[in-house]
Amino acid sequence: MILPLFFIFCLFSSSHAAVQDFCVGDLTAPQGPAGYSCKNPSKVTVNDFVFSGLGTPGNTSNLIKAAVTPAFAAQFPGVNGLGISFGRLDLAPGGVVPFHTHPGGSEILVVVQGTILAGFVSSANTVYFKSLKKGDIMVFPQGLLHFQVNAGGSAAIAFVSFSSSSPGLQILDYALFGNNLPTELVAATTFLDTAQIKKLKGVLGGTG
Amino acid sequence: MILPLFFIFCLFSSSHAAVQDFCVGDLTAPQGPAGYSCKNPSKVTVNDFVFSGLGTPGNTSNLIKAAVTPAFAAQFPGVNGLGISFGRLDLAPGGVVPFHTHPGGSEILVVVQGTILAGFVSSANTVYFKSLKKGDIMVFPQGLLHFQVNAGGSAAIAFVSFSSSSPGLQILDYALFGNNLPTELVAATTFLDTAQIKKLKGVLGGTG
Amino acid sequence: MILPLFFIFCLFSSSHAAVQDFCVGDLTAPQGPAGYSCKNPSKVTVNDFVFSGLGTPGNTSNLIKAAVTPAFAAQFPGVNGLGISFGRLDLAPGGVVPFHTHPGGSEILVVVQGTILAGFVSSANTVYFKSLKKGDIMVFPQGLLHFQVNAGGSAAIAFVSFSSSSPGLQILDYALFGNNLPTELVAATTFLDTAQIKKLKGVLGGTG
Amino acid sequence: MILPLFFIFCLFSSSHAAVQDFCVGDLTAPQGPAGYSCKNPSKVTVNDFVFSGLGTPGNTSNLIKAAVTPAFAAQFPGVNGLGISFGRLDLAPGGVVPFHTHPGGSEILVVVQGTILAGFVSSANTVYFKSLKKGDIMVFPQGLLHFQVNAGGSAAIAFVSFSSSSPGLQILDYALFGNNLPTELVAATTFLDTAQIKKLKGVLGGTG
Amino acid sequence: MILPLFFIFCLFSSSHAAVQDFCVGDLTAPQGPAGYSCKNPSKVTVNDFVFSGLGTPGNTSNLIKAAVTPAFAAQFPGVNGLGISFGRLDLAPGGVVPFHTHPGGSEILVVVQGTILAGFVSSANTVYFKSLKKGDIMVFPQGLLHFQVNAGGSAAIAFVSFSSSSPGLQILDYALFGNNLPTELVAATTFLDTAQIKKLKGVLGGTG
Amino acid sequence: MILPLFFIFCLFSSSHAAVQDFCVGDLTAPQGPAGYSCKNPSKVTVNDFVFSGLGTPGNTSNLIKAAVTPAFAAQFPGVNGLGISFGRLDLAPGGVVPFHTHPGGSEILVVVQGTILAGFVSSANTVYFKSLKKGDIMVFPQGLLHFQVNAGGSAAIAFVSFSSSSPGLQILDYALFGNNLPTELVAATTFLDTAQIKKLKGVLGGTG
Repeated sequence: MILPLFFIFCLFSSSHAAVQDFCVGDLTAPQGPAGYSCKNPSKVTVNDFVFSGLGTPGNTSNLIKAAVTPAFAAQFPGVNGLGISFGRLDLAPGGVVPFHTHPGGSEILVVVQGTILAGFVSSANTVYFKSLKKGDIMVFPQGLLHFQVNAGGSAAIAFVSFSSSSPGLQILDYALFGNNLPTELVAATTFLDTAQIKKLKGVLGGTG
Repeated sequence: MILPLFFIFCLFSSSHAAVQDFCVGDLTAPQGPAGYSCKNPSKVTVNDFVFSGLGTPGNTSNLIKAAVTPAFAAQFPGVNGLGISFGRLDLAPGGVVPFHTHPGGSEILVVVQGTILAGFVSSANTVYFKSLKKGDIMVFPQGLLHFQVNAGGSAAIAFVSFSSSSPGLQILDYALFGNNLPTELVAATTFLDTAQIKKLKGVLGGTG
Repeated sequence: MILPLFFIFCLFSSSHAAVQDFCVGDLTAPQGPAGYSCKNPSKVTVNDFVFSGLGTPGNTSNLIKAAVTPAFAAQFPGVNGLGISFGRLDLAPGGVVPFHTHPGGSEILVVVQGTILAGFVSSANTVYFKSLKKGDIMVFPQGLLHFQVNAGGSAAIAFVSFSSSSPGLQILDYALFGNNLPTELVAATTFLDTAQIKKLKGVLGGTG
Repeated sequence: MILPLFFIFCLFSSSHAAVQDFCVGDLTAPQGPAGYSCKNPSKVTVNDFVFSGLGTPGNTSNLIKAAVTPAFAAQFPGVNGLGISFGRLDLAPGGVVPFHTHPGGSEILVVVQGTILAGFVSSANTVYFKSLKKGDIMVFPQGLLHFQVNAGGSAAIAFVSFSSSSPGLQILDYALFGNNLPTELVAATTFLDTAQIKKLKGVLGGTG
Repeated sequence: MILPLFFIFCLFSSSHAAVQDFCVGDLTAPQGPAGYSCKNPSKVTVNDFVFSGLGTPGNTSNLIKAAVTPAFAAQFPGVNGLGISFGRLDLAPGGVVPFHTHPGGSEILVVVQGTILAGFVSSANTVYFKSLKKGDIMVFPQGLLHFQVNAGGSAAIAFVSFSSSSPGLQILDYALFGNNLPTELVAATTFLDTAQIKKLKGVLGGTG
Repeated sequence: MILPLFFIFCLFSSSHAAVQDFCVGDLTAPQGPAGYSCKNPSKVTVNDFVFSGLGTPGNTSNLIKAAVTPAFAAQFPGVNGLGISFGRLDLAPGGVVPFHTHPGGSEILVVVQGTILAGFVSSANTVYFKSLKKGDIMVFPQGLLHFQVNAGGSAAIAFVSFSSSSPGLQILDYALFGNNLPTELVAATTFLDTAQIKKLKGVLGGTG
């Protein structure tokens, strides 16, 4: 049996067909709409498929008392092209992950410690939110505004998974107040008062 | 030649294979993740592929002095499953389409009258905006917050196209202030002042 | 502003466009290649997007000392059409999830308790395996044979996420020995000894 | 081991998750953009996955001395949703499959008897054609005009495969001359002479 | 809040994850099946997302009295990978866009001036055509033969959008008569008279 | 007509838009999740779309009396990105293609000589198998374990087509016994006896 099948495997190992099982991202090579170029499969090891950066808590010593640690293709190249990625969410007591979207994928969150109040708003403007306890999972459809809040008195931890290897993350406050979009343009397109806008631009480092 | 090829066409017309050219949405039948069920192809006419609702201006006698008229699969079933849809944008002088996203598709806007200032914000928090004149087109990548403002003294008109037959439309102000999401929760997840939130909930019909 | 935008929302709420944000599976309606038919969005509640079945350990009082609890579209209809699903893995000391594949999606596993030795084999016949500790994640590319083994002395728990709402699960031993595939045919297509096949058919309830 | 895994299989067999392995088309149920509704998996047998209609020659006693026998989802429901379909091509001496396209998929042709001259034209207007002998395969990219001609003195047979379960088939002569498109409109949009158009409309049963 | 979220943004801006919001085509870098390689996001400006080439009429001083101006990924790299592109159609009185297909995408046409008679033919050989007035839109499903004719006495203008960033364009007359496909082969595969073929080859610069 | 349309073609030939009709793989350039980089279209000839390697029998002088000859993107770069590939199967009397999967695509097999017993196992653990005669086709859904056995007294030949340009091939015996996966780990994850594992590792060149 060795000969002909080995012949097949020779074909495969001498070609790049096998890499189609996976395409570990080479962050130094050209990137296309489908993701990063593939690392040479002969140089791929198990460590390309394992990521240990989520084992330690993110730093929640900040105003939102929260931290998000992504394991997207840019941080975990092993998921490149596989249509999936992951992350960790740490919420200190009073911690909040403010309204945000993932333009490129849907999300499932699982609570592994504490209690988290999570919700999203649909295109039809309906709000869906609930308090989640340890072991509960909630799905957030692609591109919709959603949030997570620590609903208990102790630190909360969650893992989040996405239906894309690069789902993106657009945090509402940063999009509105953390850049150089002129205050009057923010006011015209959000109906917020100018004073409110200037106040939050101050907090978030925005200009204009 | 008639016999065998006619035989082929008989196969096709007696089967539903031909409907795979298109799948005109039957809004009364079950809907799935890929779109509406298909109308019986024998009942499809050219009128299923033509939509005349964009020929007349939308009503801009309102606070934003703007109107958006969609021709998505729900309004124009002929696009169901074809990965494309359309719409019309009317902006009176001073008109604004406030910050919004399309969770399900990318958009191209073409200015057909007047001048429009349009922009979007990326996941990396960069703002891209420009004043567009008649004939200019601008693309807005899927799921990102974007806006359009009448940048001239006269009425502006644009047509918009989308990379999905049901791209969705999530208008930021309505998502935040037009529903029953409790004020304290909006405050916690947006860092807006409570007074600001209550003021806009009043304008947009929100409660809580 | 209320009138025209409300007009838009009327369009959307009176149509099914909004359901395109999500398509909660109606397990009683026709199913298509893209998934289940959509539940009427007016009947959808937050409970359709939350699943609590993963909060309690699976029963590991069995020969493999392991249990897999899926939250695929069939168990968690809220993920239908969203390209993502979830599950829980319990491994008692000595527990094993034997070789299996998910024909329809890639998987990411995160260890939340204990130590797990996990691995997969590529089309090029290379083995990638590693011992994972709490907080480590590993990705298993779509369709490839993989396994998980409790590598510690205490119970291990992991959550698993998939890049499909219905990734499927084909367990090698059940595929070979748990059905009515004739012993001689199993022997001819696996090169296993007949005695070995009959022994495992006995354990797994296979016939022929 | 039986209990917990059997528990999993119970979940799966009592649910519709398993059907996601395949979705045998139910030609009597609603059809969507992704294909036909799925036949109840408990009623699916091996005969749903086997098609014997390509074992006998098509009838080539006709003007083009050729016959195409499709095994698309409409004729072979087992391929529904699997992104693949098949067909048989018979070419008597002098037989021709005139210019046609498959709007929904790419094609690979394999010659199993005789010699076939096959070719296609690209969007850049380049012609790619070659005489194929027994065992040769040629790929025709999606949507491009292509043809096949018997290039030998004896009957030729080929099998064709497609990258869609419903690739469609648009035969140029029938599209132009086999329907009720007015002659003057055909002339205006093809630059063919009116006499030529009327002559072929006569052959192909067109009117107007 | 600045620190941890800024930390996230640092990750993103120092990585290429953000580019996944968009992938502005670098026409000088390798191209893959999904499109062009991505321009370095740090070099992307708003001008990459705006195209002004459709603001001026195409030259209709020609035999068909028509001009098509594409804004596909090759002309408008900002749409690369976004599943959408655009174009402009100018039809002088008597102007015609002859039968053509877009192998890679569906099309929506909107009339912005004049009257246009547009139509397409399905795989089932049915013709769908209608006279469109200003503001009307019509959808042409992917890969099907279609045409547009000026149906009024004055110049007509339309914008066209596509469900692909590179839909392609195959013009029937050029595919048949504008290259070196031998006359006898054109005759055999179209059933057109040799004199007719030679006449049009002469007009369109074809040889053989 | 020449001028404007020629103008279009100039645009296309001077750009890479036309290459979107196809993307012949350049095996020496970067590869991404969607496949190989595209060969320069100006260097593409008809020979890139034709593959003659399936015209001669594979070598079946081996233990399984069978040979599989792939025409995937790695061997036949013309199919790169087109979602389809091909192969040939030779089965001498008594020949067997042992249990294997294609992680990346579904398969259709057509018998062109002899008789073949073919089957697959579903996620629900049901076996579907049947004896196929000349001209019969059978479809094997993506990622599921399947096999083919010569069911007659003479040599059998089949062609196989796939719904991916790189479907992959994972042969069960090689995955379990043809690499360095430790015997005790194979035993733990397959429940096979150690002696059986060592015996097959010996045959297939496995170690550990």
